[in-house]
Amino acid sequence: MYELGVVYRNITRADRAATDRLAPLGSATVHEAMGRVGLMKPYMRPIYAGAQVSGTAVTVLLQPGDNWMLHVAAEQIQPGDVVVAAVTTECSDGYFGDLLASSFKARGARALIIDGGVRDVKTLAEMDFPVWSKAISAKGTIKATLGSVNIPVVCAGMIVHPGDAIVADDDGVVCVPAAMVARTADAAAAREAFEGEKRAKLASGVLGLDMYKMREPLEKAGLRYID
Amino acid sequence: MYELGVVYRNITRADRAATDRLAPLGSATVHEAMGRVGLMKPYMRPIYAGAQVSGTAVTVLLQPGDNWMLHVAAEQIQPGDVVVAAVTTECSDGYFGDLLASSFKARGARALIIDGGVRDVKTLAEMDFPVWSKAISAKGTIKATLGSVNIPVVCAGMIVHPGDAIVADDDGVVCVPAAMVARTADAAAAREAFEGEKRAKLASGVLGLDMYKMREPLEKAGLRYID
Amino acid sequence: MYELGVVYRNITRADRAATDRLAPLGSATVHEAMGRVGLMKPYMRPIYAGAQVSGTAVTVLLQPGDNWMLHVAAEQIQPGDVVVAAVTTECSDGYFGDLLASSFKARGARALIIDGGVRDVKTLAEMDFPVWSKAISAKGTIKATLGSVNIPVVCAGMIVHPGDAIVADDDGVVCVPAAMVARTADAAAAREAFEGEKRAKLASGVLGLDMYKMREPLEKAGLRYID
Amino acid sequence: MYELGVVYRNITRADRAATDRLAPLGSATVHEAMGRVGLMKPYMRPIYAGAQVSGTAVTVLLQPGDNWMLHVAAEQIQPGDVVVAAVTTECSDGYFGDLLASSFKARGARALIIDGGVRDVKTLAEMDFPVWSKAISAKGTIKATLGSVNIPVVCAGMIVHPGDAIVADDDGVVCVPAAMVARTADAAAAREAFEGEKRAKLASGVLGLDMYKMREPLEKAGLRYID
Amino acid sequence: MYELGVVYRNITRADRAATDRLAPLGSATVHEAMGRVGLMKPYMRPIYAGAQVSGTAVTVLLQPGDNWMLHVAAEQIQPGDVVVAAVTTECSDGYFGDLLASSFKARGARALIIDGGVRDVKTLAEMDFPVWSKAISAKGTIKATLGSVNIPVVCAGMIVHPGDAIVADDDGVVCVPAAMVARTADAAAAREAFEGEKRAKLASGVLGLDMYKMREPLEKAGLRYID
Amino acid sequence: MYELGVVYRNITRADRAATDRLAPLGSATVHEAMGRVGLMKPYMRPIYAGAQVSGTAVTVLLQPGDNWMLHVAAEQIQPGDVVVAAVTTECSDGYFGDLLASSFKARGARALIIDGGVRDVKTLAEMDFPVWSKAISAKGTIKATLGSVNIPVVCAGMIVHPGDAIVADDDGVVCVPAAMVARTADAAAAREAFEGEKRAKLASGVLGLDMYKMREPLEKAGLRYID
Repeated sequence: MYELGVVYRNITRADRAATDRLAPLGSATVHEAMGRVGLMKPYMRPIYAGAQVSGTAVTVLLQPGDNWMLHVAAEQIQPGDVVVAAVTTECSDGYFGDLLASSFKARGARALIIDGGVRDVKTLAEMDFPVWSKAISAKGTIKATLGSVNIPVVCAGMIVHPGDAIVADDDGVVCVPAAMVARTADAAAAREAFEGEKRAKLASGVLGLDMYKMREPLEKAGLRYID
Repeated sequence: MYELGVVYRNITRADRAATDRLAPLGSATVHEAMGRVGLMKPYMRPIYAGAQVSGTAVTVLLQPGDNWMLHVAAEQIQPGDVVVAAVTTECSDGYFGDLLASSFKARGARALIIDGGVRDVKTLAEMDFPVWSKAISAKGTIKATLGSVNIPVVCAGMIVHPGDAIVADDDGVVCVPAAMVARTADAAAAREAFEGEKRAKLASGVLGLDMYKMREPLEKAGLRYID
Repeated sequence: MYELGVVYRNITRADRAATDRLAPLGSATVHEAMGRVGLMKPYMRPIYAGAQVSGTAVTVLLQPGDNWMLHVAAEQIQPGDVVVAAVTTECSDGYFGDLLASSFKARGARALIIDGGVRDVKTLAEMDFPVWSKAISAKGTIKATLGSVNIPVVCAGMIVHPGDAIVADDDGVVCVPAAMVARTADAAAAREAFEGEKRAKLASGVLGLDMYKMREPLEKAGLRYID
Repeated sequence: MYELGVVYRNITRADRAATDRLAPLGSATVHEAMGRVGLMKPYMRPIYAGAQVSGTAVTVLLQPGDNWMLHVAAEQIQPGDVVVAAVTTECSDGYFGDLLASSFKARGARALIIDGGVRDVKTLAEMDFPVWSKAISAKGTIKATLGSVNIPVVCAGMIVHPGDAIVADDDGVVCVPAAMVARTADAAAAREAFEGEKRAKLASGVLGLDMYKMREPLEKAGLRYID
Repeated sequence: MYELGVVYRNITRADRAATDRLAPLGSATVHEAMGRVGLMKPYMRPIYAGAQVSGTAVTVLLQPGDNWMLHVAAEQIQPGDVVVAAVTTECSDGYFGDLLASSFKARGARALIIDGGVRDVKTLAEMDFPVWSKAISAKGTIKATLGSVNIPVVCAGMIVHPGDAIVADDDGVVCVPAAMVARTADAAAAREAFEGEKRAKLASGVLGLDMYKMREPLEKAGLRYID
Repeated sequence: MYELGVVYRNITRADRAATDRLAPLGSATVHEAMGRVGLMKPYMRPIYAGAQVSGTAVTVLLQPGDNWMLHVAAEQIQPGDVVVAAVTTECSDGYFGDLLASSFKARGARALIIDGGVRDVKTLAEMDFPVWSKAISAKGTIKATLGSVNIPVVCAGMIVHPGDAIVADDDGVVCVPAAMVARTADAAAAREAFEGEKRAKLASGVLGLDMYKMREPLEKAGLRYID
């Protein structure tokens, strides 16, 4: 359940250096390193391809068709933050456009993750301000009802606490709890290093069947080859 | 992010008496009493009409196509509980049928809320064991990968902590945090009493425009009547 | 485009007697009689099975998550009307429940058709007040922004002008323009009469292939039978 | 790929007696007995609850918005058949209503399975002619373009060959290849018998954890209990 | 309800000069200038990014899986028109490809807006002929059943009259009634000018909270800041 | 119904030369040449624009959330193959990423067609390894349950036999049965040649109404022009 009408000003952000290590590792590797949890639903798509971002979450809870709290959230942004916006109901209006993006960017935000709609996407791409959203819609919103800022929210099926680390790229959006960022970055980096070797082997023609020693478990599971 | 492979045995359940007051009040009134938060997404539908249930949440996290943890959860059920199951990925297989329902019922469970599929729905209706689910599917599942029991989960867009109160009926499923159940039941009951009066007035022909004194604010907002 | 903030009080309703003839004919037959046009999208479903209604449209345009205009519309209802509600954005909140239903019923409304959500569905069924909707949701709405009453609206993909005849049953919802109601009722009744004969023939084992003389056109189209 | 414009008249139907044994076993048990394959997608829903049917498939391929081939198929129906209709494109029009149902019933058909829409659902329920479909729609169709009858079709994601056995109930629709019907019925019946015992044990309070001897594999998989 | 089998040849097009001013203003700004109405549903997406178009509507009503009327519409196109196509049923076939695009372009059409599918999208991009559609599909269509040209249609939830102005870009598609184009272009241009100032202020670090004087209304609404 | 736990090693591939002719012809033209059958559902989208591929199908059946059989399939790939993967349930996990792509590429695969999710899409684009999929998801999968390789599968609504020819581009994915590839390539090429002429005529301003001699059939169908 959500607490409405509150703004938490003092949140504990995940370690900056560790958070910044996540972007180049990418959402898929980070997600694997956490044991395959933390991923938002795959309907969250970037408005343009190629962006790769990590940052600390400033969370926002919006009411349907109302973007008032995004303006309230702007003041809470610190450089290196990623704004994560949930909506109390499914409503794909365009809650965010180039004006808010100018403001978010001026405050140091790196991206917006929104379980709703966004507009001015051409301008946002020109500004190089990436957004991952559920929809694109020219429909504007009103400013009439309170939500909250920096409470825990559910965004695209995932719990995000203020200060958690977010990593987003073309594969999707992953949330890493603040307390786990350093160890997740380590695990993901180790995984990444190890993947380089595996990629080279596979590219040279070695089969995963042999590299991962799958032939025996497959036989045990009863796999039959028929000529 | 989810903690995998754990079962929390000692959870604090919401007050039983207060929780039991929620069912007759219904999901819509309880949801209003909380300030319009706490509702799962409307794709959660009962497998048969008319059931009206409240209880304390035993939470389960499942892996896609795998219902192993529902068997683990059965042991944690106490009379008056409602099992709330989330899945790490969207997958509509039939995770639950009449066998598990027999077991859940024997342990005292009142209902299952599952962000996935269910089967044997005809038998479940005959057994009078209600389920709110995302899908109905005859597809069975395997028992191979660990999830967790009694961790906080996101079910149909809503955070549910173990021990929270759940109220479900034909209108949907609402989660009330354990600490707020008594006061929410009070607020909902007050609301319900008040609604009875209003219903009578409206049924007698009094308009909401007058009863709620809306004519002035509508005029201020600029509403024009055209003959 | 919609005109916002207006209520048209004097609308021309379709002929009452002709409109009342539509309900027993049903949406499928009426829709055929019009040349297969006028049907709302099939996601519009009745909240309970078996209701069969026709009436004259009072139209409402709602804002997302806001049911203010349904209260304004109540005053414009006359006995025999069906309220048809569109929303400016897709938003499945529960705009309508038992309180508004009490008021609508007191004014003589026969049904609500809403391209959004509805709640209190168990009570609505007990009251025998039928609703065709896109969703069922316990989520309540605010009263803050103007829409309009009795302007032409698009509801579930279909244009509805105030005063048009609406016919709704388990097969869906059809809109018949006011000027065409009498002739549509005649055509549908003729069709219905004719269908009775056809049904009897088919039930006796005569094939549609012969009754509709399809064998020759099928052969011309190139149909080949293979033994 | 589909062969268009052909009607295969002599198809080999699955063994009648074995096919008839499937209905009371139900789609979930039959599906399990086949190793969890053969189920159509769960969007296929019965137009009324409680029907439980099995029969031999007469397959139909329809063109979008065109039900011509259903009339052609009627002639190929033999008592005990279930008609299975696929459409070359996703199109939810109402391809089937009470007239065709009268004809199908007269020929001995037990049900229709259609990856499209159906209408006259109230009358179909009164006639006790069950249909599993993707949609309900009052929209009628034309008779202009050839499809085929009794070719292999893909219906709701499942390959159905003419003569295969179909079993359908509230849980969904399963297709059993003609050559496997007898052995599948045996396996499903054995499973059903065995399930009765299990159900009784679970209802008496024995846990699945013990009955299925899951505690050791769960421990091996690393499950931790936390008090 | 739709009139079938007619082509209106003499339609009144919106003022050309005013219509041409809309494209650079964009769908979001035009939509705001109209009071947030007129937008088609956000499932309408451009087949390639970056196109920004305005023009006068030639409307077409298609039957499912049938593109005959697009050929009829071609003859009614005048330079500066945008073709707006609705379908009587939801059906995502590819109604339009490079051949029709060649013809439309030769007649002076600027774009196609279609509540259905389109194909040859790579060639259309090379031809620089933009399309906003609900789907991309290689599936071709037949030419068998009449629809209409230049009647009012509902396209993606919006009423479009022949001659209305259409503006489309990466944010979506907006319809401006012919009679309102000049005043809408003025209002949108004023808005756009004003937005430039606001953007500069926000980019310099001024908060929307201060620029829009939101602090007082937020406090009145009860917003609490918690340190 | 699917046969589980088998790998067919000796499949008959469609003629290589004929298969290779399909890619430049494109999915829309090939689909037309087959009489408008063979197209997968339009939700199958390329992960990057512009790829145009044809090849012979190696088919894979996966279990939900499990990519084990993709490793098994790798060994069966021969140069010129396209891997076609179906899943027994709808589950959008990321079954395939850059490691498997390295392996597939090393074996000579030209593309993957998967009725599920894929990840590492940025790297796949850099590697120029095209994928057509239902979803993009960073979610990884397990290796626990057997499916099959080189059995007939249903992928996105279409039957694909091992060895069939696949053609995929921005318009979608078409399957051509192995026995029909040569004649389909001929028919598609003839069609393509003919389309060049038609395109030139239409671009010069000749109307389809005249070029296709539609005026008479339209008049017969009852089309009325209104000035």
